Amino acid sequence: MQISELIQTIQNKQSYLCVGLDTDITRLPVGFSPNKQGVIDFNKAIIDATLESCVAYKINTAFYEAMGIPGWEAMEATLAHIPSTHFTIADAKRGDIGNTSAQYAKTFFEILPFDSITVAPYMGEDSVRPFLEYKNKVTIVLGLTSNKGSNDFQQLVVQDGIEQALVPSILQGNTQARLFEKVMSKVASWSSPSQLMFVVGATQSSEIENIRNAFPEHFFLVPGVGFQGGSLQDISKHGLNQNGGLLVNASRAILYASSGKDFAEEAAIIAQQYHFEMKQYLSARSI
Amino acid sequence: MQISELIQTIQNKQSYLCVGLDTDITRLPVGFSPNKQGVIDFNKAIIDATLESCVAYKINTAFYEAMGIPGWEAMEATLAHIPSTHFTIADAKRGDIGNTSAQYAKTFFEILPFDSITVAPYMGEDSVRPFLEYKNKVTIVLGLTSNKGSNDFQQLVVQDGIEQALVPSILQGNTQARLFEKVMSKVASWSSPSQLMFVVGATQSSEIENIRNAFPEHFFLVPGVGFQGGSLQDISKHGLNQNGGLLVNASRAILYASSGKDFAEEAAIIAQQYHFEMKQYLSARSI
Repeated sequence: MQISELIQTIQNKQSYLCVGLDTDITRLPVGFSPNKQGVIDFNKAIIDATLESCVAYKINTAFYEAMGIPGWEAMEATLAHIPSTHFTIADAKRGDIGNTSAQYAKTFFEILPFDSITVAPYMGEDSVRPFLEYKNKVTIVLGLTSNKGSNDFQQLVVQDGIEQALVPSILQGNTQARLFEKVMSKVASWSSPSQLMFVVGATQSSEIENIRNAFPEHFFLVPGVGFQGGSLQDISKHGLNQNGGLLVNASRAILYASSGKDFAEEAAIIAQQYHFEMKQYLSARSI
Repeated sequence: MQISELIQTIQNKQSYLCVGLDTDITRLPVGFSPNKQGVIDFNKAIIDATLESCVAYKINTAFYEAMGIPGWEAMEATLAHIPSTHFTIADAKRGDIGNTSAQYAKTFFEILPFDSITVAPYMGEDSVRPFLEYKNKVTIVLGLTSNKGSNDFQQLVVQDGIEQALVPSILQGNTQARLFEKVMSKVASWSSPSQLMFVVGATQSSEIENIRNAFPEHFFLVPGVGFQGGSLQDISKHGLNQNGGLLVNASRAILYASSGKDFAEEAAIIAQQYHFEMKQYLSARSI
């Protein structure tokens, strides 16, 4: 699925919910074996229970890698179970020199046919380009992340300022942008909003309005709602654009809504609650 | 292997060569099948041919992931073939929020028993801590990388300056450090040189002297010699410290020294040339 189809799906379904499959083998509900098959069965049940409410699934590759080879088999089986009606994200945070990033792009766009992958920007343009070269895929670059450590480097003021031509906003003319603003404006100059998204954490609600003004067209993948404490209301108020422009991810709040036999029903209820709330925010803007 | 043993090995062997196993399935020599077994057989031959000359092996995970599950099997088999006399590096450039980085640490320190892993710093302290919590393992954080894209963000001047207490050097008092200096000084405050290294690219020879002065104790993993154009002489002149303090990596120059049946002999010769040169640099400093 490409971004144009995602926009249609969001509008048709009145949802911008992404369900995060950060499936922890040690937290499967009663009755599931703590192995590959347990993870696959759990994920299938979660997917089946949430399909109606969400438009995307995000697979956090770390939780699968930590199981070794059976984990990669579980990732393949999980991805294969997600219907083509839903946008898929490999949350892998990859990035390396050009010839190496090209291998990562091959991994997550060809070997595992995800629609998109998350990419870390520290190594600069030639570390991101190999992903962007897949024109029918989406590259999701870290902007301002949801964790406490986002203050360590992303918030540093950099002297060089932002890439002016790209930012028709309140940031324009500001020669003292912060690192994440510089990163986002520079990365935005390498591609178009039709194949580039940014990660913007839901815990950064005081920042979202400025970021949306600076990047009116781009989709933001927003983790941090739920367990990490981000507010869906705040994110939606300041982050929605005329296309929706948001994918708000919830992982633990849905996956572990119940540890009992009713885990899927409870997951469905939480997903429906997000969906219900999102419908209101979209409707209020006539999206 | 921990850093104290690595220091002993460097001194005993008079080498600080790391052989990078960035094995590209499309570039195996004649006679090797382009599949998992071909990669394993090739890697074993390269390891056997270079054991005497090097002190470390670096497995670039991207090249294995790009083969899918057979690639992870090849990575396991390759790691198992490296004797405990050599330091092992998972060149994986991972990093995510805390609970996710913990999964990556488990992957590369437990499931695959590497001695160390490379980590991307963009997401800050809680993305790096889970790796550092393995006290008998080594975390190798990106400082100044070897690629052209290192100019995009790593070289940005940041207003906040470096962590003064840690840097007994010419950088001290400089309130206009660049991002990589800020990253390195901040990361250095989270751990000790006994379990923390930095990636410093060999193509950055004009920077190495200042970086070494600023971080006299830390080991630097130095990619970029050979194919990427970095000079072993420059790196060694400015980068060695009293313990050696360098792991200089060569990948393509060794792996693809010949595409014929003599690939292993030619790989051995290139590795011996690096080793011979390194002996001179160590000897000149009485290390």
